[in-house]
Amino acid sequence: MKSKLVLSLLALGIAGTASAQIKPEDAIKWRQSGYGFMAWNMARIKMNVEGQFNKEEVIKAANAIQAVANSGMGALYLPGTDKGTGWEETRAKSNIWTEKEKLTKAGGAFNMAANEMAKVAATGDAAAVKAQFGKLSETCKGCHDDFKAKR
Amino acid sequence: MKSKLVLSLLALGIAGTASAQIKPEDAIKWRQSGYGFMAWNMARIKMNVEGQFNKEEVIKAANAIQAVANSGMGALYLPGTDKGTGWEETRAKSNIWTEKEKLTKAGGAFNMAANEMAKVAATGDAAAVKAQFGKLSETCKGCHDDFKAKR
Repeated sequence: MKSKLVLSLLALGIAGTASAQIKPEDAIKWRQSGYGFMAWNMARIKMNVEGQFNKEEVIKAANAIQAVANSGMGALYLPGTDKGTGWEETRAKSNIWTEKEKLTKAGGAFNMAANEMAKVAATGDAAAVKAQFGKLSETCKGCHDDFKAKR
Repeated sequence: MKSKLVLSLLALGIAGTASAQIKPEDAIKWRQSGYGFMAWNMARIKMNVEGQFNKEEVIKAANAIQAVANSGMGALYLPGTDKGTGWEETRAKSNIWTEKEKLTKAGGAFNMAANEMAKVAATGDAAAVKAQFGKLSETCKGCHDDFKAKR
């Protein structure tokens, strides 16, 4: 029975073993946590480019964002979790599960921008950090506009 | 006035520019997010050592935990945020702000264990991952026992 469930999740393109054991409310809470953690790190970079620039702090923040971007959070979008409550009611729109091509494109753009952000942060060049931060923010917005419900 | 606030925060050992602009409720929400994001990644490693071991997934999870551990979340423990609500009411105990030596020791142990977890994950050695996961979990517990209120 369990292996059947794993197989059907695999067929849906969801990573097998792990996801099969995740409760929907945990999946929603964990993905909200990932975004919440990124929100802090985006805010940190913003404060640094708008105020006193601290290279080390920007590096930490950019590395944190990069790690979240590369963590494979897509696995937390279990079938059926367009409804449900983690820390709060999910705002994931149901087209996440239907507009795969568009989603992959938006996710890929974010991923590339996050990896680039970490590289740029390492240089300590405040102007370049500011420019890349703008590009990265655009990729967040790109996904939110299409796939995240407004409050 | 603002620079006075920054100076007094610096005197308290809180990173200046950035923290001075952070709202208490955001600081609480962001640190809860960091722990929530780690909870997912700890759960992932656990599922992998208990079930089918997927090296790549364990690496992603360990890297994510390492990035959180090195992100400098201590900056989110603003004075006064032993009370307040982020995603939920904080369970941070007030001795976080008074038992500095003990806290630094507990935090340092977690940090070392998280960095080691990422190294061990990279080897793909399931038994070693399991052993290091146990050590890492102990360091989480070490902090929670002393500094996090029970539900």
